[in-house]
Amino acid sequence: MPYRAPIAEFEFLLAHVAGFDRVAAVPRFAEATPDTVRALLSEAGRICEEVLAPLNAVGDRQPSRLENGVVRTPPGYAEGYRAMAEAGMTAISANPDHGGLGLPITVTTCVNDMAGAACLALQMNTLMTQGQIEALEHHASEEIKALYLPRLTSGDWSSTMNLTEPQAGSDVGALTTRAEPAGDGTYRITGQKIYISWGDNDFTGNVVHLVLARLPDAPKGTKGISLFLVPKRIPDAAGEPGVANSLKVVSLEHKLGLHGSPTCVMQYDGAKGWLVGEENRGMAAMFTMMNNARLGVAVHGVSICDAATQAAVAYALDRKQGRPLIEGGTGSIVDHADVRRMLMEMKAETFAARAMALDLAVSLDLGHAGDAGQAARAAVLTPIAKAYGTEMGIKTANIGIQVHGGMGYIEETGVAQFARDVRVAAIYEGTNGIQAMDLVGRKMADGGVAIHALIDALEAEAGAHPMGAPVVQMAQGLRDVTGALLAMEMNARFGGSVPYLMGFARVLGAVYHLRAAAAAGDAARGALARFYIDRLLPEAQGLFAQARQGASGLYDLSPEDLAA
Amino acid sequence: MPYRAPIAEFEFLLAHVAGFDRVAAVPRFAEATPDTVRALLSEAGRICEEVLAPLNAVGDRQPSRLENGVVRTPPGYAEGYRAMAEAGMTAISANPDHGGLGLPITVTTCVNDMAGAACLALQMNTLMTQGQIEALEHHASEEIKALYLPRLTSGDWSSTMNLTEPQAGSDVGALTTRAEPAGDGTYRITGQKIYISWGDNDFTGNVVHLVLARLPDAPKGTKGISLFLVPKRIPDAAGEPGVANSLKVVSLEHKLGLHGSPTCVMQYDGAKGWLVGEENRGMAAMFTMMNNARLGVAVHGVSICDAATQAAVAYALDRKQGRPLIEGGTGSIVDHADVRRMLMEMKAETFAARAMALDLAVSLDLGHAGDAGQAARAAVLTPIAKAYGTEMGIKTANIGIQVHGGMGYIEETGVAQFARDVRVAAIYEGTNGIQAMDLVGRKMADGGVAIHALIDALEAEAGAHPMGAPVVQMAQGLRDVTGALLAMEMNARFGGSVPYLMGFARVLGAVYHLRAAAAAGDAARGALARFYIDRLLPEAQGLFAQARQGASGLYDLSPEDLAA
Repeated sequence: MPYRAPIAEFEFLLAHVAGFDRVAAVPRFAEATPDTVRALLSEAGRICEEVLAPLNAVGDRQPSRLENGVVRTPPGYAEGYRAMAEAGMTAISANPDHGGLGLPITVTTCVNDMAGAACLALQMNTLMTQGQIEALEHHASEEIKALYLPRLTSGDWSSTMNLTEPQAGSDVGALTTRAEPAGDGTYRITGQKIYISWGDNDFTGNVVHLVLARLPDAPKGTKGISLFLVPKRIPDAAGEPGVANSLKVVSLEHKLGLHGSPTCVMQYDGAKGWLVGEENRGMAAMFTMMNNARLGVAVHGVSICDAATQAAVAYALDRKQGRPLIEGGTGSIVDHADVRRMLMEMKAETFAARAMALDLAVSLDLGHAGDAGQAARAAVLTPIAKAYGTEMGIKTANIGIQVHGGMGYIEETGVAQFARDVRVAAIYEGTNGIQAMDLVGRKMADGGVAIHALIDALEAEAGAHPMGAPVVQMAQGLRDVTGALLAMEMNARFGGSVPYLMGFARVLGAVYHLRAAAAAGDAARGALARFYIDRLLPEAQGLFAQARQGASGLYDLSPEDLAA
Repeated sequence: MPYRAPIAEFEFLLAHVAGFDRVAAVPRFAEATPDTVRALLSEAGRICEEVLAPLNAVGDRQPSRLENGVVRTPPGYAEGYRAMAEAGMTAISANPDHGGLGLPITVTTCVNDMAGAACLALQMNTLMTQGQIEALEHHASEEIKALYLPRLTSGDWSSTMNLTEPQAGSDVGALTTRAEPAGDGTYRITGQKIYISWGDNDFTGNVVHLVLARLPDAPKGTKGISLFLVPKRIPDAAGEPGVANSLKVVSLEHKLGLHGSPTCVMQYDGAKGWLVGEENRGMAAMFTMMNNARLGVAVHGVSICDAATQAAVAYALDRKQGRPLIEGGTGSIVDHADVRRMLMEMKAETFAARAMALDLAVSLDLGHAGDAGQAARAAVLTPIAKAYGTEMGIKTANIGIQVHGGMGYIEETGVAQFARDVRVAAIYEGTNGIQAMDLVGRKMADGGVAIHALIDALEAEAGAHPMGAPVVQMAQGLRDVTGALLAMEMNARFGGSVPYLMGFARVLGAVYHLRAAAAAGDAARGALARFYIDRLLPEAQGLFAQARQGASGLYDLSPEDLAA
């Protein structure tokens, strides 16, 4: 399926919606000039269009498979990976001391967006490495950094994140993988991990696993979890991949989508590992990787929004129908009002989801540069962007199938793959339900200060725009329901948390659209903003009505009633 | 995946929500006593549980395939089909003169609901035959009826419906398949048809195709289309399948789901056909079949709602988590407020979608018995039930995946199949966009009389219920937006049609829930009604806001803007 890298859209968003100039003004990002960013995005975009996009259907039809304990990846994936690594796409934001480009996460976000739209299954690999690099930069010893970071940054080696076990999914604290001190400063890791994305491959020299495990006599729950680095091959004295570690891929999952990405069951049998960070503080280190990954997964949704929209628009313009339906029509199905409605919805949601991801990325960059207010803002935006972005990926892929009619249901068309691939994005890196609990739990732990600051800013901005009145009103509704949630006990909050998050996202999306309309001065941006505000924003009313219910009535059916 | 036939639920719905007693009071349905219906549903339910449900995963993994021009169906499908045929499940509503049971469509609807939940791909076969029987009963000559109806009714032969061609999908009038008089009262049919469900199989003695085609010099568009019966094998003098007709299966589609159901590209090369109904009146005859099929496809949605809900509830009750979250909790993830919310939503939507399908079925039965008001009511309900039922099938399947977390993405779990299988139901038998256009076009052609009668009745009923106030208010909103649409020119109506339909469905669903709560007197029905009214009904506000927009702004982006 052809893919067109939306370079101009990124430039517009960076300049007029995400406020990237604030990031570029940070001294250590002095190199992130518009020209540099444009050149980098253009080159990455070219690779996505020419090298990665053609691999997408290949990986779907010829999945990664396990042969004699070794993962064999789809034809062309090795070349695709190499092209990404050579263009530095794995390490745009990695520390220059280890070979990274040292550019803002915002730039990485644009590149991931394109790579995910072109070939989500392969992009998943680089996302894991990006997260691991950040986790090691923050938490690993200097020795580990010196050994691993250059090789991960170059893309010679790749990374995984090992949390889940059969009995410990969202409830990470239930994990039982053991780590025993070997006496030489290393540890022996033993246990089984599941759902390990890119747990192995046949194109990097090593695979570096970050594994959550328990030390002997560790406290129960999440406070007794430590993080270990466990390489597939133990580096020798020269830093080259040496003897095989005591770990293996037991099996690959047969999944709804992302067939190109091997999802592994990993078995560690006394594998040699190195502690990352402090004992029993593994969750903190893992959260560095997780938060990075949450933005990354939000972008998975954005990627599919864009890919699905591009495909649907192309089809609707191309697909002829018998007779012209409207005066001056094209004679293709795009003349149909309902087809227009679907395409406008896809475009409006894609814009909002992408703007939100970039807004979050900018706040992360500014937060990392020392702005505590922006860091708090990023903490609030993270679960919203992750859940909204992925839900919109699912929604637009679904609308895209509908635009294609019967063709949409035929696998060769390629748009059903978008729906299959993106579905897991609402589940991994914390299900969207977990994101919503994070938003009304941890992110309200300050009594709502950070959330209210964000709402105030949204309302003020909307109030200054001629089209903003309905957005102001909805922001006020958001403030009210925020107050209502803050007054509830935690489980009641949880009962209203998902609709609250989605309604919050609607208000954010409306403000991004207003910002674009104000900046652009062209009719198209204004029309899309009006569409969003007139047709999609009102959905928030129903969502807030749900959120206000909290957990009320949710337990009125007994387990027996539910099963009846 | 285990499946439990919801016999008690059907009995409750028939007695207390759908008003089946009115159908049973029709003289020709005198045999549809509660005891007879219960016995029939129980036996059909047993077959669904024991014979069909185990075939569902088999057909998904071992799809129907084309071997030397012949369709080979998945292992066990032949036995499954035979069990259905022997139990009379293909012909519950068929005329007793030809071996049918002569029972109401409402009873067929319950049976199809169960069969679709157990194995949708195979049930699709019997649905086609049910529709063809009805079309032939209404439009075919006595000769054709005498020859074909007994064999279709017994299930010895099966049926297809041939509308779509590569250039003629929703725009049926663009079809080009030709029919030339052979001089002996038969016709020679030549052309290609696509998306033909169950275009062939290896378990019935014959396959009877109903094919739309054009006579020489026929008017353009839908007014020049005639309907032909084209058997795979031409019956000999004894009525047995004789020589092969000049038609073949060219290929099978590789689809997102419904892998067990062969979706055929059919080639007719001067195949021998018989006219059904009058020349150039084929659309009228086809609509008999289509309307039947629209209820049938609505039920596909209901089937998957139920199957997905049963699976999600079972998983949520079974899946343990680390620590109890609520006082008196089960220790499984069902304790989570957000999991409860998802399960309640699945159950509430399943109930509403099923009630709507049965409500429609009862109106169809009463309409067929001569009640013109009920026939008009059925005409309004048909597109709503089709679109809402299928959207809810898609939605609940999607929520079901989410309840399963990572397990939901693994194909072996079986719940991803529900989402894949049901997706096409929003597309075939008229996309849901086409349904919405039908609702605001043809079904408003009476100036809104039938729709207003329905809304008045909904409002009056809600007004009489202690929990009904929000429903009354939303019914008034529905009336207002109906008036707004009636005042618009047609293309503007089309622009608001899909949200209008979905909002309409919300009001209907709320009234069904109220009816159930009033009738039941048990706490569970009341709790589910409250959930629906408090949490799901408010969504209609946003939908009506969209509907009121009509086509406003939909054409503000040029084709170039859309493609940008």
